[in-house]
Amino acid sequence: MISIHNEPQPTDLGDVRVANRAVVLRHVRRHAPCSRADIAARTGLNKATVSSLVGELIDQRLIRETGLTENRVGRPATMLMLDGAPYAALGLQIGADELVAVAIDLAGNRLLTWRRAFTAGTVSPAETLRALAALARRAIGRVGAQGRTVLGLTVGVPGLVDPTGAVPLATALGWRDVSLAAELRAALREPDFAVGVDTVANLAALAEQRHGGYADGADLVHLTGGTTIGAGVIADGRLLRGGRGFAGQIGHLCLDPSGPACDCGTRGCLSALVGLPAVVRRLLPDAEADGPVTDYLPELARIVTLARRDDPAVRAGLTEIGRHLGQGVAVLVDLLNPEVVLLGDHLGTLAPWLLPAARSTLAARAHAPGAGGCQLAASTLDTAAALGGATAALATVEAGRPPTR
Amino acid sequence: MISIHNEPQPTDLGDVRVANRAVVLRHVRRHAPCSRADIAARTGLNKATVSSLVGELIDQRLIRETGLTENRVGRPATMLMLDGAPYAALGLQIGADELVAVAIDLAGNRLLTWRRAFTAGTVSPAETLRALAALARRAIGRVGAQGRTVLGLTVGVPGLVDPTGAVPLATALGWRDVSLAAELRAALREPDFAVGVDTVANLAALAEQRHGGYADGADLVHLTGGTTIGAGVIADGRLLRGGRGFAGQIGHLCLDPSGPACDCGTRGCLSALVGLPAVVRRLLPDAEADGPVTDYLPELARIVTLARRDDPAVRAGLTEIGRHLGQGVAVLVDLLNPEVVLLGDHLGTLAPWLLPAARSTLAARAHAPGAGGCQLAASTLDTAAALGGATAALATVEAGRPPTR
Repeated sequence: MISIHNEPQPTDLGDVRVANRAVVLRHVRRHAPCSRADIAARTGLNKATVSSLVGELIDQRLIRETGLTENRVGRPATMLMLDGAPYAALGLQIGADELVAVAIDLAGNRLLTWRRAFTAGTVSPAETLRALAALARRAIGRVGAQGRTVLGLTVGVPGLVDPTGAVPLATALGWRDVSLAAELRAALREPDFAVGVDTVANLAALAEQRHGGYADGADLVHLTGGTTIGAGVIADGRLLRGGRGFAGQIGHLCLDPSGPACDCGTRGCLSALVGLPAVVRRLLPDAEADGPVTDYLPELARIVTLARRDDPAVRAGLTEIGRHLGQGVAVLVDLLNPEVVLLGDHLGTLAPWLLPAARSTLAARAHAPGAGGCQLAASTLDTAAALGGATAALATVEAGRPPTR
Repeated sequence: MISIHNEPQPTDLGDVRVANRAVVLRHVRRHAPCSRADIAARTGLNKATVSSLVGELIDQRLIRETGLTENRVGRPATMLMLDGAPYAALGLQIGADELVAVAIDLAGNRLLTWRRAFTAGTVSPAETLRALAALARRAIGRVGAQGRTVLGLTVGVPGLVDPTGAVPLATALGWRDVSLAAELRAALREPDFAVGVDTVANLAALAEQRHGGYADGADLVHLTGGTTIGAGVIADGRLLRGGRGFAGQIGHLCLDPSGPACDCGTRGCLSALVGLPAVVRRLLPDAEADGPVTDYLPELARIVTLARRDDPAVRAGLTEIGRHLGQGVAVLVDLLNPEVVLLGDHLGTLAPWLLPAARSTLAARAHAPGAGGCQLAASTLDTAAALGGATAALATVEAGRPPTR
């Protein structure tokens, strides 16, 4: 197989320092507690460079000395770890029936996870924006009260997000052309940290890559549940975005031209067959007796209870939904050849009953023998997109560019 | 939108020199004739570094002084260009009814393009390998007689290719588990250049990125025709390979569960609807009157003639095939959001009649408004996969690592 480098970039000593700072930070994140000598030995950087970079990172309060020493031949080595205290990064997520806020420190430890019931699909974008800004302000206030500087905030949206952080289309929310990043920045009075927007699927994939059960996989997909199914794709270690940032749209893949109608105007899409409203409609025919469902959590809990009790109709329905899911995953697997596809949200909750049929359909449908080595599993992450949003907000610092304040 | 850097690598001055050598080579490739001062001004590298790197590259005969000078204020500047004379890179391609060999020099100029009628799908892998090795030997002999050193050779196969250059499955050829790279290396008596294997789709995508009508696009897809349809995907400037190198399999995407049977065992796959044998069968019902078609080129020429004459049955058939193609492309576009999808092989030949229906189906089916900005067009490259194979064989040198001999 050929590795081709199409875009060599000129490098200078400043770039080298930034890159090496990122290498040291990453090593400490993954191997703490560790000493300066460990870093030099494991990264191949020379000891003087490591000492100088570590000194800078300590000054910037990105890493700290633990107070522990390790006894070796020669001088005892002072151990280092990421400094969890001075900074926080925030992630928000617009879910099918809730808003979520997550804050993490530099080491990825969760500082808060808040879920607020909110059905964005039934209200105006402006109302959702107000609720989102209120939640963000509370979270900023909370981490501020802990003496932390906010490094950045990223919001996950179930829809298309363009490079400016605007949302041209989000069928699950009924949105068209919402300038979310700009409006949220204004609502937060132009804060001095970056406010970004990305798809829930992309952010969940970043969270998987950093914190999930298959972390550091170079080729993974996170499938988001909720109203529309989305794919967050890590390909060769990087998020796959496409030319305008619209990659990962698997929700409207047609699986059954005679299937149920979809919000998008066609029939039998993956979302119309395995999305949360479709699943509730299919498995709980009485759920809409008193009008449209707006709060899906109790309905999902009912489905789980019925599945656990071996309710035959629910189990048969879940098997059928699992087959549709396997069909959709087979298309992803043929095109992207990931090492693992992780099921998030309600697909993760229902995974024990979806996976057997989904896996056998995947094996039968994928072109490469053994589905090209791809595993299909439930995500182990809670509120993955919000966690990914907070993770994404750390990117600049992790790339070796320290906070400027 | 967030850019995240997950895999910072330690850098040292040796790496910097390799990277900067690649930058200089690339600049000369794209902007020749150019002077040392131009290179410094445009790349941001300092003049002393550029002079030293250029000196090395001239010694290695990778670039040369043109003899031209440009008059400016101060000393006249000596102009540089890639040295086309000392080296060659080879690409081979196994097509539906031919073997192709292409040789290029370092600047990408074609030194030879040979096509040999050969229906690999009707003979044993060993026979194909013998024919391929014979073609390779002739090409090596030809460029050797020009005094050129071969930098590498890459073969394109319509099927799955693993990282060792083996072919676990190629339904179009009837192959399973063929150790192509190893066997070709042996047949060529372990040459002192690299012998690689990749999919025709990946190599054609590399050729598009370097030589095609949308060259240097960061996000493009080349769809190969022939017996099975394959997608070569450039995402964010790099070839999308997946965990085991099996990405880009679009050929067995099911578009019509009641459609024609496919080699893969299911029905209504993209290949079974728009692959070359399917197209011939659909448009020329008499083509198989004297037994199976093995030589598709004359049949394709007949279809073109009939389409040009406005034959109503052929035009209607091409519109229907165009619609199926548009459906398949919409799935690619939703998942990958490329800037352009380029049609190769018979799809390119038939593009004038396929494109109208394909484009309107794409616009209707893709989820993002305006198909996310994606264009659909015919490839302008001839024998794209073989050209891409030769291009791939230059990768090591272009990455700043000069030939060792």
